[in-house]
Amino acid sequence: MSIKIAIAGYGNLGKGVECAVKQNADTELFGIFTRRNPVDVKTVFPESKVYKIDDILNYKNDIDVLVICGGSATDLPVQTPELAKNFNVVDSFDTHANIPSHFANVDAKAKESGKIAMISVGWDPGLFSLNRLYAEAVLPDGKDYTFWGKGVSQGHSDAIRRIDGVVDARQYTIPVDEALNAVRSGANPELSTRDKHIRECFVVAADGANKAEIEDKIKTMPNYFADYNTIVRFISKEELDRDHSGIPHGGFVIRCGKTGANAQNTHIIEYSLKLDSNPEFTASVLVAYARAAYRMNLEGISGCKTVYDVAPVYLSPKSPEELRAHSL
Amino acid sequence: MSIKIAIAGYGNLGKGVECAVKQNADTELFGIFTRRNPVDVKTVFPESKVYKIDDILNYKNDIDVLVICGGSATDLPVQTPELAKNFNVVDSFDTHANIPSHFANVDAKAKESGKIAMISVGWDPGLFSLNRLYAEAVLPDGKDYTFWGKGVSQGHSDAIRRIDGVVDARQYTIPVDEALNAVRSGANPELSTRDKHIRECFVVAADGANKAEIEDKIKTMPNYFADYNTIVRFISKEELDRDHSGIPHGGFVIRCGKTGANAQNTHIIEYSLKLDSNPEFTASVLVAYARAAYRMNLEGISGCKTVYDVAPVYLSPKSPEELRAHSL
Repeated sequence: MSIKIAIAGYGNLGKGVECAVKQNADTELFGIFTRRNPVDVKTVFPESKVYKIDDILNYKNDIDVLVICGGSATDLPVQTPELAKNFNVVDSFDTHANIPSHFANVDAKAKESGKIAMISVGWDPGLFSLNRLYAEAVLPDGKDYTFWGKGVSQGHSDAIRRIDGVVDARQYTIPVDEALNAVRSGANPELSTRDKHIRECFVVAADGANKAEIEDKIKTMPNYFADYNTIVRFISKEELDRDHSGIPHGGFVIRCGKTGANAQNTHIIEYSLKLDSNPEFTASVLVAYARAAYRMNLEGISGCKTVYDVAPVYLSPKSPEELRAHSL
Repeated sequence: MSIKIAIAGYGNLGKGVECAVKQNADTELFGIFTRRNPVDVKTVFPESKVYKIDDILNYKNDIDVLVICGGSATDLPVQTPELAKNFNVVDSFDTHANIPSHFANVDAKAKESGKIAMISVGWDPGLFSLNRLYAEAVLPDGKDYTFWGKGVSQGHSDAIRRIDGVVDARQYTIPVDEALNAVRSGANPELSTRDKHIRECFVVAADGANKAEIEDKIKTMPNYFADYNTIVRFISKEELDRDHSGIPHGGFVIRCGKTGANAQNTHIIEYSLKLDSNPEFTASVLVAYARAAYRMNLEGISGCKTVYDVAPVYLSPKSPEELRAHSL
């Protein structure tokens, strides 16, 4: 019997979940729940059913796990605790600083309902967090580094679009090769924000806009760009649409640590992702953790969980016996 | 209160555990148990206590976790089930084909005693296995590749030493760059054994030995070398001792998978290790899993476990709250 998964919220991430559910033999899509009028929603696959989010409680007994695909700023802090009252849920809450309070809110509701609520699932937080934990546990005398990119930062692209005279923009975060190589050398360098990443901006300016002024506003924008080496390139709307319509991302988690009686031996652990589609990859991680949430809840486990709380065996569709015989 | 760890078997791996226990603030060494006469054993740290393995049951209540550092061929199949009758144990059993039977033997004993027995811990099996599982669970439509090296293969070095006229030898397993790059390109190539790894052998021949014959015997040796491109280099004993006395190792686990309605997006997950000392790194993994074994057993969990069964949170000395706030 396959695991019935529903999607709450249908943007790029929700579409990615729709695709990922189809790739897994042991999951099937119950349906998509949206705030929009269901007849207006065009799904990736024509057979996918669409429901109004307000009706979701009618399907309480038909859904094994609900994957919540809202945004971290305003949707998830409300939706995840609310929906955990009635469903096993998985979200991709990624505002690192607010994870403890989100955890506490969600945990209270999920413990009351006896459901599992898996939060902050994806690749950072998510797979990158796992790699930070594993590497630090194994090499306590060391230092870890996380680099992001090359990839599109939606938040930084939006910040550029809010500048007067900007029609559209796309911002890439790019790790600095020299910094990556210094880390890989085992030198455990001290790296500033500016040392680690470059920000490259492709900007479409309105006709007659003052490009020098736009460039200056970008490069001096606090928090977003002021602390970085920022490259601004003005291009046409056609070029932006043709060359920069994808949503690639990725990055690196690297830990360098020492062992031995005199810390004389150096070890480097490196994990990297190179992703053509950030939302589709994140969605694929969500579906693997939806499988885990379902199985853990069947065993009577409830409450809020993160990737740290999930034994890897729950993520694989294969049996423990098969995994031990063929993957270990 | 720190976790009291004992070591059974004192070769390179046992010495690595002795060092790793010292690096972790929450673990302390109870002692080393050996088949040798304790007074003949020179420990890494002078304060480490050495006991006879035959006396180990006298210390049953003083040891939280016993790390068994014997060999997979003959020691661990006997020692791990036997010691699991009285101790939480961790081993690095690495004969992949025999893991299911080792698991069954150990599980029976550990369930009877109510102890945890963590088997096949290290980096392969171990951290590499974890990465194979995570990557496959996230990208089911894909293929994974494991490469080993550059590093010393003890088994292959030993095989060369058994040839007539060979005084000493050291064999390095080296991944083939072209194969690594083909995998990283996302092409999911079919790779033969010969395509993936080169075997480079540094050999010290006896005076007057027939080097051409030795080289031929190495290159045609079934299982060990015949299926590989093998390079043989004759060097002096002095050169071998000077340039090849380390025990480095490492490798790569790479999975390339597709997502999207038409599998149009490609993702690459790559995990790599570059290790100055294979036994010290393996020992560091063993100690992290000893921490997990201790904590899981305190919660009433017993039986045989592998890295797949251990939620990451058990591995870190940090509290779940601290991990969520600062690492996630």
